[in-house]
Amino acid sequence: MKVLVVGANGQIGRHLVNLLQDSEEHTVRAMIRKEEQQDYFKSLGIEAVLASLEGTVEEIAEAAKGCDAIVFTAGSGGHTGLDKTLLIDLDGAVKTVEAAEMAGIKRFVMVSALQAHRRENWNEKIRPYYVAKHYADRALLQSGLTYTIVRPGGLINEPGTGKITAAENLERGTIPREDVARIVYKSLTEERTFNTSFDVISGESPIADALKTL
Amino acid sequence: MKVLVVGANGQIGRHLVNLLQDSEEHTVRAMIRKEEQQDYFKSLGIEAVLASLEGTVEEIAEAAKGCDAIVFTAGSGGHTGLDKTLLIDLDGAVKTVEAAEMAGIKRFVMVSALQAHRRENWNEKIRPYYVAKHYADRALLQSGLTYTIVRPGGLINEPGTGKITAAENLERGTIPREDVARIVYKSLTEERTFNTSFDVISGESPIADALKTL
Repeated sequence: MKVLVVGANGQIGRHLVNLLQDSEEHTVRAMIRKEEQQDYFKSLGIEAVLASLEGTVEEIAEAAKGCDAIVFTAGSGGHTGLDKTLLIDLDGAVKTVEAAEMAGIKRFVMVSALQAHRRENWNEKIRPYYVAKHYADRALLQSGLTYTIVRPGGLINEPGTGKITAAENLERGTIPREDVARIVYKSLTEERTFNTSFDVISGESPIADALKTL
Repeated sequence: MKVLVVGANGQIGRHLVNLLQDSEEHTVRAMIRKEEQQDYFKSLGIEAVLASLEGTVEEIAEAAKGCDAIVFTAGSGGHTGLDKTLLIDLDGAVKTVEAAEMAGIKRFVMVSALQAHRRENWNEKIRPYYVAKHYADRALLQSGLTYTIVRPGGLINEPGTGKITAAENLERGTIPREDVARIVYKSLTEERTFNTSFDVISGESPIADALKTL
């Protein structure tokens, strides 16, 4: 598959783009916002396309043209201004879903947040961020796309362990960004994750095994 | 009909509650957030119920119990913090839609914003606010409720004229809050507004006539 990574310059995004680039199974196109981000990807021989999540659905669809799958991993985890939470994490995500539909791309993986589907379990400190993630996920659920919604716990920058716990509902925990990228990578073709949403934190099972239990 | 007004203490809300209270056709229950707001309504002999849009769907459904219709006119027009835009204008609105479904209340009127359905026409200065209104409206559209989405232009505090222009798409304009309240009031029973969304600004037609052209 050719995979468009939206938010490719983010921390999870860079891990994921590298995995896809090293893969024999897939090819990758990095969608990035700024011209100056292109150098990083070019230096690695990775195809990069400029498009803004604050632009139109058509612009994103154009950037996605010819891809077989889209991964949305843009966003800030609640640390940017809430204007961007609304414009990027919510509307940018939904525009990307609509762009997939417009471009005829059926496979879509969304990086969400632990328990984003259940208001009663939203992290109080970043509750507005959770609102945005929740409604972005809802739009994907209501689309006709073959979706996977990956809801990681607290993101950390430790090296990945490759060992996780994944289930529909989990208690809070943390997970390295590198492992989230690996989960997304595996999910692209793991049919047990198709049309499925799940929480994920660090745990005891190898990623491939954990995803098969979903 | 017995009508629950959510955001009853707001400027449009107070106009609307008064119209409903004076009506022979309807009765009204004001949903308010703070205990101290109750005095105003009590002094007018208006039933008031305390419930928070930051609370649960169940709490809102409980407040709505026994009503035949809900009007959502809470929110700030983009002048509060964006945390409240996410929590109230978006999530609070959607929770109210869900509460209507939970309580078996079929009729729902949403006060939205001019052109909230078309990203390309969002007011740049309050674009994040438009994101919230857009997705709240979408949730209502996707519900099974008999909806009306009233999308007023720039809200002003002039006395109402009772004369408007209403259509699916309008250029920008202004409208007194008092007239928005009257439009909502008329819409409750005007079947031409059922399952319909429309822009509205001040104009030349009496409200009742304008709504019949929809």
